[in-house]
Amino acid sequence: MGEQAQFRVAWLDAGGPDSDIVVSSRIRVARNIEGYPLKVKLKGEQEAELESAVVSGIERAGLAANLSYDPLKDKDPVHRRLLFERHLISMEHLKAEGHHGVAYTPVGDVSVMVNEEDHLRIQVLGAGLQLSALLQKIDGLDEKLAEQLDYSFHSQFGFVTSCPTNVGTGMRLSVMLHLPALVLSKLIEKVFNAVNKMNLAVRGFYGEATEASGDFYQISNQITLGKTPDDLLAELDKTIPKIVSYEREVRRGLVDEDERKILDDKVWRAFGILTSARTISSEEAMHLLSHVRMGVNLGILTSLKLETLNELFVVTQPGHLQQREGRTLKQEERDITRATYIRERLRAASP
Amino acid sequence: MGEQAQFRVAWLDAGGPDSDIVVSSRIRVARNIEGYPLKVKLKGEQEAELESAVVSGIERAGLAANLSYDPLKDKDPVHRRLLFERHLISMEHLKAEGHHGVAYTPVGDVSVMVNEEDHLRIQVLGAGLQLSALLQKIDGLDEKLAEQLDYSFHSQFGFVTSCPTNVGTGMRLSVMLHLPALVLSKLIEKVFNAVNKMNLAVRGFYGEATEASGDFYQISNQITLGKTPDDLLAELDKTIPKIVSYEREVRRGLVDEDERKILDDKVWRAFGILTSARTISSEEAMHLLSHVRMGVNLGILTSLKLETLNELFVVTQPGHLQQREGRTLKQEERDITRATYIRERLRAASP
Repeated sequence: MGEQAQFRVAWLDAGGPDSDIVVSSRIRVARNIEGYPLKVKLKGEQEAELESAVVSGIERAGLAANLSYDPLKDKDPVHRRLLFERHLISMEHLKAEGHHGVAYTPVGDVSVMVNEEDHLRIQVLGAGLQLSALLQKIDGLDEKLAEQLDYSFHSQFGFVTSCPTNVGTGMRLSVMLHLPALVLSKLIEKVFNAVNKMNLAVRGFYGEATEASGDFYQISNQITLGKTPDDLLAELDKTIPKIVSYEREVRRGLVDEDERKILDDKVWRAFGILTSARTISSEEAMHLLSHVRMGVNLGILTSLKLETLNELFVVTQPGHLQQREGRTLKQEERDITRATYIRERLRAASP
Repeated sequence: MGEQAQFRVAWLDAGGPDSDIVVSSRIRVARNIEGYPLKVKLKGEQEAELESAVVSGIERAGLAANLSYDPLKDKDPVHRRLLFERHLISMEHLKAEGHHGVAYTPVGDVSVMVNEEDHLRIQVLGAGLQLSALLQKIDGLDEKLAEQLDYSFHSQFGFVTSCPTNVGTGMRLSVMLHLPALVLSKLIEKVFNAVNKMNLAVRGFYGEATEASGDFYQISNQITLGKTPDDLLAELDKTIPKIVSYEREVRRGLVDEDERKILDDKVWRAFGILTSARTISSEEAMHLLSHVRMGVNLGILTSLKLETLNELFVVTQPGHLQQREGRTLKQEERDITRATYIRERLRAASP
């Protein structure tokens, strides 16, 4: 239970810009180091050598005081899963087997994955919509590391990356949006179509290859080649505020009409089930928490905090549940533990 | 709200025999009066005359002190619906247009319908499984009325009735069973097959032509011709206790196993939805109240009384809701009123 007391993930704060709809923003850059083959061809010894080189680069860059390195080789799967659920490492990194690891800050606003798909994946995360602030932040980090590490760079194509889709800036910007009203009103397809035409990608709460769940959608730029970071930022800056306005408009629409009753009912039923169920799957929990989150934003549920809900989306994931219980849990046990925990948290927060 | 304070329906008491499973027992006899054509051929004036004759017969039999007559011609539909929901009149009687009515006791344990499908339908109702007590009771009433009214009787076939299925004793015995565990375990089909082989009929909470809802099943004898009341009683006495034992056995089975968790969850979710929903259909309410009722019987929900639940099945029906509000309600309004009322009742009864 010590885990619980310590828990803080900066990007779950509900004080960020537009945080009724934008849960978090994130930017990552992919970097590789000269003199080493790309990840797919790295042998065991070279992997270990590269890991040391990066860790020492972080130290020399003066970042080690805040960014502590966590070597993941042979590390407990529950621990790795926890890092994944906090968006500190990717699914690929979670599954990796050789020498690899991640340096991250205590509140999880910066992480540097080592030996992921690329040698380095530097990542910054923040609550709400704040891509331009994050762009400044990651530029600063990237420059400090570039002074210590010899990045592979091609004069014509830009940063060399394992996957061609990342060549150029090697940068991906993304935002996590909560769009329950667009989902309820079935307008979400329109948004997807528009987003796809803009060459932006839509993913789920836990990134690549995950389904959207709980009405959360991660939107990010797809193409980096031939574009500057400012181009990428501009693309999202043009699109995201429109989606945010659209979601708000539909929420108001739902609220002004007779549908308010239906919405009230949906929110309250979700709350009723979450405060009563004895077993609940991750998927159902996400779905119901999403409705409750919208209920908080619309002033239907007045005694709950947005932070509590943002946090519940993460701490009810399998890694966090098992970390809290201090042991591996079967799925059935997780579903029971999840239900118990949600019940306690929501009841404590209710009138 | 005066309605609410006065509300008492004896057959909803939870103190009857086997009342964890048997909600109520009911016996009715069909009688017709010599000198009048059967109902289908009764003209307006004769209907009125017959009505007067029966009411005066009830008075002469010394039953009027307890059985007050309620003429239903041109009576408010909400009032008629209320009587139907208390099982004092049938659906056919609710819809009848000419001179017709019903005499009933304040607690609804006896009713005498006049000009239903037959000239008289005498009915006694009681909580739990108590068919033989009810048989004595209805015999007593029937004899008193027979002394004052000239029943049509055929020496070979017995009492003359409008529908041939009632010829003979004109009697139907029925019990209302609550069988959620048999439904959950999908064993209910086996019960139906057995019951049908016994020539017993299965109906829903509100009798003929109503679907079973909320896991309630009304079981009654089908064939009366050539059988004495004791034969009919024996048929049900042989079958009902077996179904009761079967339901109990399955409930225990559910409770002993791992399935206890699933059952707990089902009961608590039902309770969570009922104490939270802002709008709820009659069908969903019946279904969820059924799970809560089982939860009370199994000791999962300890702070609720069985009476409260038995009552909710009836007072959340459209007639009772509209009576309480003192006006006609559209379906949408009823669903909202129903949800509000259930919430208040269950919350008041919860810890």
